[in-house]
Amino acid sequence: MFGFKGRSKVTMIKNPIKWPNGARCAVVFTWDMDADSIIHLAHPNDADTRLSTTSMLRYGPQIGVPRIIDLCNELGVKHTFFVPGWCAEQHPQAIELMVKNGHEVAMHGYLHEYPNLLTREQEMFWTKKGTDAITKITGKAPVGYRAPWYRYSKHSTDILAQLGFTWDTSLMGDDNPYLIRQAGGELIELPSRWQLDDWPQFVHNHDLDFMMPIASPQCAMDVYMAEFYAMYEHGGIWLNCFHPFCSGQVARLMMVKQMMLKMLEKGDVWIATGEQVANYVREQVTAGKYVPRVDDLPFYEGRLPELAENYAPGN
Amino acid sequence: MFGFKGRSKVTMIKNPIKWPNGARCAVVFTWDMDADSIIHLAHPNDADTRLSTTSMLRYGPQIGVPRIIDLCNELGVKHTFFVPGWCAEQHPQAIELMVKNGHEVAMHGYLHEYPNLLTREQEMFWTKKGTDAITKITGKAPVGYRAPWYRYSKHSTDILAQLGFTWDTSLMGDDNPYLIRQAGGELIELPSRWQLDDWPQFVHNHDLDFMMPIASPQCAMDVYMAEFYAMYEHGGIWLNCFHPFCSGQVARLMMVKQMMLKMLEKGDVWIATGEQVANYVREQVTAGKYVPRVDDLPFYEGRLPELAENYAPGN
Amino acid sequence: MFGFKGRSKVTMIKNPIKWPNGARCAVVFTWDMDADSIIHLAHPNDADTRLSTTSMLRYGPQIGVPRIIDLCNELGVKHTFFVPGWCAEQHPQAIELMVKNGHEVAMHGYLHEYPNLLTREQEMFWTKKGTDAITKITGKAPVGYRAPWYRYSKHSTDILAQLGFTWDTSLMGDDNPYLIRQAGGELIELPSRWQLDDWPQFVHNHDLDFMMPIASPQCAMDVYMAEFYAMYEHGGIWLNCFHPFCSGQVARLMMVKQMMLKMLEKGDVWIATGEQVANYVREQVTAGKYVPRVDDLPFYEGRLPELAENYAPGN
Amino acid sequence: MFGFKGRSKVTMIKNPIKWPNGARCAVVFTWDMDADSIIHLAHPNDADTRLSTTSMLRYGPQIGVPRIIDLCNELGVKHTFFVPGWCAEQHPQAIELMVKNGHEVAMHGYLHEYPNLLTREQEMFWTKKGTDAITKITGKAPVGYRAPWYRYSKHSTDILAQLGFTWDTSLMGDDNPYLIRQAGGELIELPSRWQLDDWPQFVHNHDLDFMMPIASPQCAMDVYMAEFYAMYEHGGIWLNCFHPFCSGQVARLMMVKQMMLKMLEKGDVWIATGEQVANYVREQVTAGKYVPRVDDLPFYEGRLPELAENYAPGN
Repeated sequence: MFGFKGRSKVTMIKNPIKWPNGARCAVVFTWDMDADSIIHLAHPNDADTRLSTTSMLRYGPQIGVPRIIDLCNELGVKHTFFVPGWCAEQHPQAIELMVKNGHEVAMHGYLHEYPNLLTREQEMFWTKKGTDAITKITGKAPVGYRAPWYRYSKHSTDILAQLGFTWDTSLMGDDNPYLIRQAGGELIELPSRWQLDDWPQFVHNHDLDFMMPIASPQCAMDVYMAEFYAMYEHGGIWLNCFHPFCSGQVARLMMVKQMMLKMLEKGDVWIATGEQVANYVREQVTAGKYVPRVDDLPFYEGRLPELAENYAPGN
Repeated sequence: MFGFKGRSKVTMIKNPIKWPNGARCAVVFTWDMDADSIIHLAHPNDADTRLSTTSMLRYGPQIGVPRIIDLCNELGVKHTFFVPGWCAEQHPQAIELMVKNGHEVAMHGYLHEYPNLLTREQEMFWTKKGTDAITKITGKAPVGYRAPWYRYSKHSTDILAQLGFTWDTSLMGDDNPYLIRQAGGELIELPSRWQLDDWPQFVHNHDLDFMMPIASPQCAMDVYMAEFYAMYEHGGIWLNCFHPFCSGQVARLMMVKQMMLKMLEKGDVWIATGEQVANYVREQVTAGKYVPRVDDLPFYEGRLPELAENYAPGN
Repeated sequence: MFGFKGRSKVTMIKNPIKWPNGARCAVVFTWDMDADSIIHLAHPNDADTRLSTTSMLRYGPQIGVPRIIDLCNELGVKHTFFVPGWCAEQHPQAIELMVKNGHEVAMHGYLHEYPNLLTREQEMFWTKKGTDAITKITGKAPVGYRAPWYRYSKHSTDILAQLGFTWDTSLMGDDNPYLIRQAGGELIELPSRWQLDDWPQFVHNHDLDFMMPIASPQCAMDVYMAEFYAMYEHGGIWLNCFHPFCSGQVARLMMVKQMMLKMLEKGDVWIATGEQVANYVREQVTAGKYVPRVDDLPFYEGRLPELAENYAPGN
Repeated sequence: MFGFKGRSKVTMIKNPIKWPNGARCAVVFTWDMDADSIIHLAHPNDADTRLSTTSMLRYGPQIGVPRIIDLCNELGVKHTFFVPGWCAEQHPQAIELMVKNGHEVAMHGYLHEYPNLLTREQEMFWTKKGTDAITKITGKAPVGYRAPWYRYSKHSTDILAQLGFTWDTSLMGDDNPYLIRQAGGELIELPSRWQLDDWPQFVHNHDLDFMMPIASPQCAMDVYMAEFYAMYEHGGIWLNCFHPFCSGQVARLMMVKQMMLKMLEKGDVWIATGEQVANYVREQVTAGKYVPRVDDLPFYEGRLPELAENYAPGN
């Protein structure tokens, strides 16, 4: 649990972790390379008839990923890529590019299925299948995880801990890294935030039933950088969730480049992969230098007793 | 009823109240600390499987509220927190923090149930249960109320008056405080406005079926401050409805801080709790110094007679 | 029909009308004073349980209209108010204020029912009922019309012409005034545009199933004024559709004031009521000084023959 | 397949085509002149009762197209118009204007029907019917195609190649022109992007079930020009999808004019029709000077084998 003692009056982040080399905050750029898995999941019976959206989504592994990696090389930073196992199998060259250039390849299900709609057995089956697919191509078992569509389940912590994962970024409970714990084990949580996702800013597509008005890169950057300036001012972690088919497009990747340049310019910002940050947090915890907040999962089992069946409806 | 006599040609607010100490307008910052009650209400049977959204919502009492209170202490202002009784029971430490620091704890149902979907008996039951939960933790019966999702019912005025409440902020009928009256009693209404809510600017969440494009804090502040400058210019009351899980996040609370600083800078703005404002209004009314507009509730009983069953459909 | 001869190379408006006194364009501010008719129409069976939205909507006639009229007096301009007959009956004092101050009171149905969902007989019944209600209060039969929700029907032209109406603003077929013609008569059409409506910018309300992100007054003004600058540059008519419950709120009416001031500043803009503009257009047409485009209505009768029953579905 | 060799470190576009005369990028302005076909398709049985939306849509061929063509003449550029065959039959004067002024008239179905909901036979029938309608009016068989609502089908490539088409712009798989290939033939693909469409910025209409918040022309231009500056910086093709009923309105066409002026100012931008660009690409490919990426279509046949019937649901 976080404490109230000893913190500075001016910081908005309680219990800040001391980042390495005097960095004021940590930054983790993450990309969900879903490719066209999501159109199959959304429309399993006629995804094959939706060619335009499929082409838009395959842009991710085919055009977006190599371009993102070039940019990372140019700026000398490492990113984290979440990849559903099936997408890795379909686009091994994109994964190899990630590996060869030193980026983290992390897990994102097998076919972008939603864990919280699965039984524990189903989730274990698909999580293992996705993990195996990644491991086979990268030669290294993934240790980081984001649940597809952030739909982390009541069993995910147990399953992930059992499979050797060390960190997750599906939850949104803090600005600091924290611990999530269940009977079967525990993970470092590097929390996500919807305002650091690129779908609400940019995605407009009827096949995906997601119809945002589409922001300019400049307007979207204002949203993302407001979060950065907040973390820079007050500590904490900035961890985004972008998608190669979307923010891997030229105009938007130019925005990403601008963002990275602004962050690098500061000089005291730690840009690293999720794995690197999670490892650092674990070391700090183990060494007793950081006492993180802990969330014991799951939060609930079944319907709230207060919500008796005859309770007034909510909608 | 408001009159047309004696008002200045330049003000847009008719029948302005004379605020204390020459203040040009009143400002009440209010927060609805719903915690995760709303996910249980929206999805009673599988809320337990929606961990990410639950974690996002629990951020409110766990991270947001202490941070908001720190900020209030830093700036020396008092806010009003609307809390469903169940949320108070689940997060008593957050409530204690509010009380200890002199903020108002007001009522927001028991489990965020919607009063206008309840019978009078059900609404009395849950309103009383919520009120008791708050009272038990704060040691003081709440006197202020906002209906969950603004869904004030035809019975709410009677029930609230009977339970000792003095003010409400669920309605949107004016820019000035006014009176709402029913057979069973009357309340001071400090009106809300949708444009002072943070959901339309910031909330994007599929579990909550609420998918806004997510504004930058700067763009949202333009909306909120336009309302402030309007009230500052013309009198009236600025009363917002923010949520700790949302605007209690660092980047947005920095926006709230900026807003408060801009208001404080003016020197002639009265920032107070809803209770303080309601008490002041009541005194002015009792002393005959302010003749407020009165809305007799409910507005209607049953279907409009003009809308006979065979009336043409509206959609 | 519009011709291509003789027009200036630089104007984007073909066949521009010559506005009076050398004005470069005409401006008609219109307000739909729907009051709470729309909540009854949307939810006939439980509108009485939706008090917050009802209070928000009644703000229109009670607070918005007097304020708008004060502003018009301050700036010396006349506006046009579309009022459903039932709303006039419910709020006669608002209508009397319009009349006393020289504004146009025009027709907007009886209970905001949608004409294009009615039979010809039903539409005649409700249109007549609405017209009678207005006439009774204003002492003058209305001559202008906007269909509720712009839902003009195949019978509206005939019915309106028969009842003595001279102009309409439910259609969107041009930038210039034009004629709409049917067997039973013809009307001057002063076209509307969705981008000059205030709902897409400002309305967010679950009871009305209309959930926009809510723009700042400044951002909305950019949309409205871009249309004005376009009309000022190229001729044509700027005719908006605002709502007293919405843009009659202080912050937004300050925006309206700014807009009017910017227009008045130009010196060569004709701000008038719809009736005045329609009368002028009719005179020009009668005098042979303006040959307007004509739309013969209705555009279609029944399903397109090309769309045979076995035609491929569109969705 | 695109290669990694020889490309500049600084460009984000791999395998850039060498545009003529040293141009840094190609720009193709395209307009979908759907007229009111889409309201008939959306509501085949009562489209005739939706007059306001019909008038809004007919503004496209009647007002928008002549104005767009005037603007093109003023600036000396040629655009591409996609026209459903039925719309050409209904509005031959608009088509003749396009032809007379040297613009490309390309194919967009017969009644805006969605190819991916048709059988191969149905699609052939309607595509041929649409093509014949265009040819009859223009005197030249169209060679370019955009599927209505981008809904390109698994059979489209075969059908289009068989009917003599040479290029398409329904897909979104790249920033460069590329090839799409099927058993029956191949086409040059000049890819579209949702962010270059005007519906997400401007369209708000209940009859069309499309309710965007409506951006100002300036805000929308920021989205469109960010894409242009990206292509100008890195190569590739900027190809938009605007609609005469929407961006043919004065305020928006003034935006289009500004955009074209900014592009023309550069001096090294190639603004051309889709046909001209596709021909150039074909020549470069034939001459071995450009090795384009190739997408073999369709991407899939039937349900993914991995998505067994008992696979966990995605929603």
